[in-house]
Amino acid sequence: MTTLAAIEAAAARMRGHVRETPLLGAPLLDRLAGRRVLVKAECLQVTGSFKARGGWAAVSSLPTGTGGVLAMSSGNHAQGVAWAAAAHGIVAVILMPSDAPGVKIANTRAYGAEVVLYDRATEDRDALAARLSADRGLALIPPFDHAEVIAGQGTVGLEIASQAAAMGIDAAEVLVCCGGGGLSAGVATALAAKATDLRVRTVEPVGFDDMARSLASGVAQSNPATTGSICDAILTPGPGRLTLPILQRLAGPGLSVTDDQARQAMALAFTHLRIVAEPGGAVALAAALFTRTCPIQ
Amino acid sequence: MTTLAAIEAAAARMRGHVRETPLLGAPLLDRLAGRRVLVKAECLQVTGSFKARGGWAAVSSLPTGTGGVLAMSSGNHAQGVAWAAAAHGIVAVILMPSDAPGVKIANTRAYGAEVVLYDRATEDRDALAARLSADRGLALIPPFDHAEVIAGQGTVGLEIASQAAAMGIDAAEVLVCCGGGGLSAGVATALAAKATDLRVRTVEPVGFDDMARSLASGVAQSNPATTGSICDAILTPGPGRLTLPILQRLAGPGLSVTDDQARQAMALAFTHLRIVAEPGGAVALAAALFTRTCPIQ
Repeated sequence: MTTLAAIEAAAARMRGHVRETPLLGAPLLDRLAGRRVLVKAECLQVTGSFKARGGWAAVSSLPTGTGGVLAMSSGNHAQGVAWAAAAHGIVAVILMPSDAPGVKIANTRAYGAEVVLYDRATEDRDALAARLSADRGLALIPPFDHAEVIAGQGTVGLEIASQAAAMGIDAAEVLVCCGGGGLSAGVATALAAKATDLRVRTVEPVGFDDMARSLASGVAQSNPATTGSICDAILTPGPGRLTLPILQRLAGPGLSVTDDQARQAMALAFTHLRIVAEPGGAVALAAALFTRTCPIQ
Repeated sequence: MTTLAAIEAAAARMRGHVRETPLLGAPLLDRLAGRRVLVKAECLQVTGSFKARGGWAAVSSLPTGTGGVLAMSSGNHAQGVAWAAAAHGIVAVILMPSDAPGVKIANTRAYGAEVVLYDRATEDRDALAARLSADRGLALIPPFDHAEVIAGQGTVGLEIASQAAAMGIDAAEVLVCCGGGGLSAGVATALAAKATDLRVRTVEPVGFDDMARSLASGVAQSNPATTGSICDAILTPGPGRLTLPILQRLAGPGLSVTDDQARQAMALAFTHLRIVAEPGGAVALAAALFTRTCPIQ
């Protein structure tokens, strides 16, 4: 169970290593959305995504003497763990699908990690991971279903709470890009304690909305496939065992957007916020712009 | 004469309106440059550039009862002044060349300004401005040669000084994208007072390096043309009468980069920092990556 105390402890451990990212907005985006829209620009985070937070939180909580870590990821968690491991002076082995974006593979290697590629279609990732972990004594850091990883991602929620307060915003829908739900669950936990009228809603690609369906039905639902959308960073088989119960308790109904809406949101973020959002990182902005929920203020 | 006190006063007036922008870096950029490189991401500023600072500083220092303001700009100063005027509830009339980037014209109008377009080739901008100003009683806010504008841009220097100190950096070359020299002069003034071993060097497009030539010769030099580079935001006829003496006193020799180097820097900023830099905003990064000066640390 991830608590506010665990999130605050993670925030203290990552101070000076992880960036406080800005909350950006632009009048033309507000006009398009018909309401005020603010974007927490985690693409500006160290390693390019919020995954640096979870990576740091997990690696910094390992027992002294841990020889190395193992992570499975199509790219962002890979970079977050590789970066955090290097900064702690420990070995990182990252299991990545061979069709992961080239820049993510290159960056993961640039952080000093050993990258092991596997074929999504023909190889069993979990079996490979179990063998690597056993053979080389590596501690596994899963991408979302892990208390310290959720606590690390929850530090985004602490920042949103204080930034919103400084801007005089006391009620808002907080739309969160959602794969396995680590970021959503962490942010929801932080906001439930720090800003009770800022309420999380998950956003997923249409056709990969396992979390929305799980929240609606009350039972974990899986996706029929994990490829077929441009939002590669958030295509997961189903919700986490730790993350779903947190979101059932704290989040509103889930939202979903099409790849085309994600693409339009990327273009608008490029033009009006001057940030480069990847497709999976743009679905929350797409939902803010193109789905009807309720206004921020 | 712009002083530290004027810059600090401008910073106080703009608090809560202008963003403190992050100082971003990435290991792969450091590796490419062969030294540590940090980018002050003013493209994330309100209105998309540091010009919001000078616009706010100038508009907020106008005498009460000023009926409106007039600015001439190909885009960034236009948006900065239009935004600041709207926030202060006063009229803004902006004189823009008809070949200015469409998004900059649209944004300037979206901030509520009246945009007057003119033909660079056939119309006399200064005569047009003088007539508009006289006919309608508008206060002129020039793009760089104005003490309050320089003070406003100088707030970037205050932030760099405190961010560098927080990162343990006490000596660095501070490469600044330079058109008329308002930003360079403001930053140099702030750093001379707050961080004496952080030294400004101007960066201009090759062929439009009036400031570098003026600094080298000791006499104001002009450019043969003000078109012919993709760096539209920083193509000025010559250095300012206020800015040049400040830079003669405080800046190192000027640098220049090719359009192709600016283009490469834009691509690298996109990929590794996930920010969208316009050509004129990327010349300083281009100089950091592609010219040999001395290492940050």
